[in-house]
Amino acid sequence: MSYTYRYPRPALTVDCVVFATYDEGLRVLLIRRGEEPFAGGWALPGGFVRVDETTEAAARRELEEETGLKSAYLEQLYTFSRVDRDPRERVVSVAYYALVKPSALAAGSDARSAEWIDVTRLPELAFDHDEILEMALARLRGKIRYQPIGFELLPQKFTLGQLQRLYETILGRELDKRNFRRSFLRMGVLQALDEMEAGVAHRPSQLYRFDRAEYRRLLRHGFNFEI
Amino acid sequence: MSYTYRYPRPALTVDCVVFATYDEGLRVLLIRRGEEPFAGGWALPGGFVRVDETTEAAARRELEEETGLKSAYLEQLYTFSRVDRDPRERVVSVAYYALVKPSALAAGSDARSAEWIDVTRLPELAFDHDEILEMALARLRGKIRYQPIGFELLPQKFTLGQLQRLYETILGRELDKRNFRRSFLRMGVLQALDEMEAGVAHRPSQLYRFDRAEYRRLLRHGFNFEI
Repeated sequence: MSYTYRYPRPALTVDCVVFATYDEGLRVLLIRRGEEPFAGGWALPGGFVRVDETTEAAARRELEEETGLKSAYLEQLYTFSRVDRDPRERVVSVAYYALVKPSALAAGSDARSAEWIDVTRLPELAFDHDEILEMALARLRGKIRYQPIGFELLPQKFTLGQLQRLYETILGRELDKRNFRRSFLRMGVLQALDEMEAGVAHRPSQLYRFDRAEYRRLLRHGFNFEI
Repeated sequence: MSYTYRYPRPALTVDCVVFATYDEGLRVLLIRRGEEPFAGGWALPGGFVRVDETTEAAARRELEEETGLKSAYLEQLYTFSRVDRDPRERVVSVAYYALVKPSALAAGSDARSAEWIDVTRLPELAFDHDEILEMALARLRGKIRYQPIGFELLPQKFTLGQLQRLYETILGRELDKRNFRRSFLRMGVLQALDEMEAGVAHRPSQLYRFDRAEYRRLLRHGFNFEI
């Protein structure tokens, strides 16, 4: 089978940047390439878009095929189109990113080649994947500075300390405790519960939960948030 | 000439959403399509990406060819890939957007078919261009709510009234004068000049200018801004 067109067409691919938070830090899901170019090298999971699927569907499919990761909420990041970004031929790639719980990684067909790598200890990546990953990291860190995200990574009830550690992990730096709490509480999306954490060695802290209804209301009407 | 591939490939296009502010409101640059499909209908300027150019270069080229508009700073918006978005065949489109001065529109090869249309009086658009335009408008309006943009649309020295009218034009609604001024002044990117506006019938207002150095510093260190 072959397909003929009047004008040359770039190949279209997708690439996925999936982050997960661990106690020790932020990691990204990378695969070892089985084929040339860059055989044996690290790369983002991804592949060619089929003509009968959207780029988003292609990203989900490739992510699952290559890493076993299912149903991550993928957000479109950017389309990368540098003319020489693939040594084989002209390839344009639509990149997606997501932030998931590490437990989301199940065994997949190719899962043996997928690994979570700490973002502070990244190997060199194939193609322009360094650039894609850098943009995804900047987007993620930029986003949590003006939008409360990442609540799906916490238990339903959490302490302000747990929340702050999540933010510190994503941002890769320590935050001032007092400023962090003030910013978050002022925003009004945390609901203080009449309940303390249990089974801890230290003095138990108050539990909070994320108020999604208030968050949605604020998204429509605007809110102040800056950490 | 023809080009043959082992797997079918979507065609790749770009579409441009260019906004301009007029005294009367916000307009978008549309063209009348000369060819089928949607011949005679309104659409966003755009066209096919060549294999030897980035999508951004394609967007600039198509915009100039179709509207005469040169050197607009185009920002990538989103890639649209619904399988049935073009009745001819599978076409994936990378959309770009920009905010320019209306005076930027010069005569171009095809400029006779380009028109600035008020965003509150939009005709139906070809393909999924309604959807693209809607996303661009939401992005623009979202962006000015947490980042000061649009300064290139004002004279170098301007009054707070001019600044507020620019924001009201882009947002399409009136803003509270006191809140607007307080938010903007608190941000610290406006430099008050020891100078009043001249040649006005009403009581002259103080002139300000945009402090780009301070803005860049705040971008790196974070700032509070919400209107």
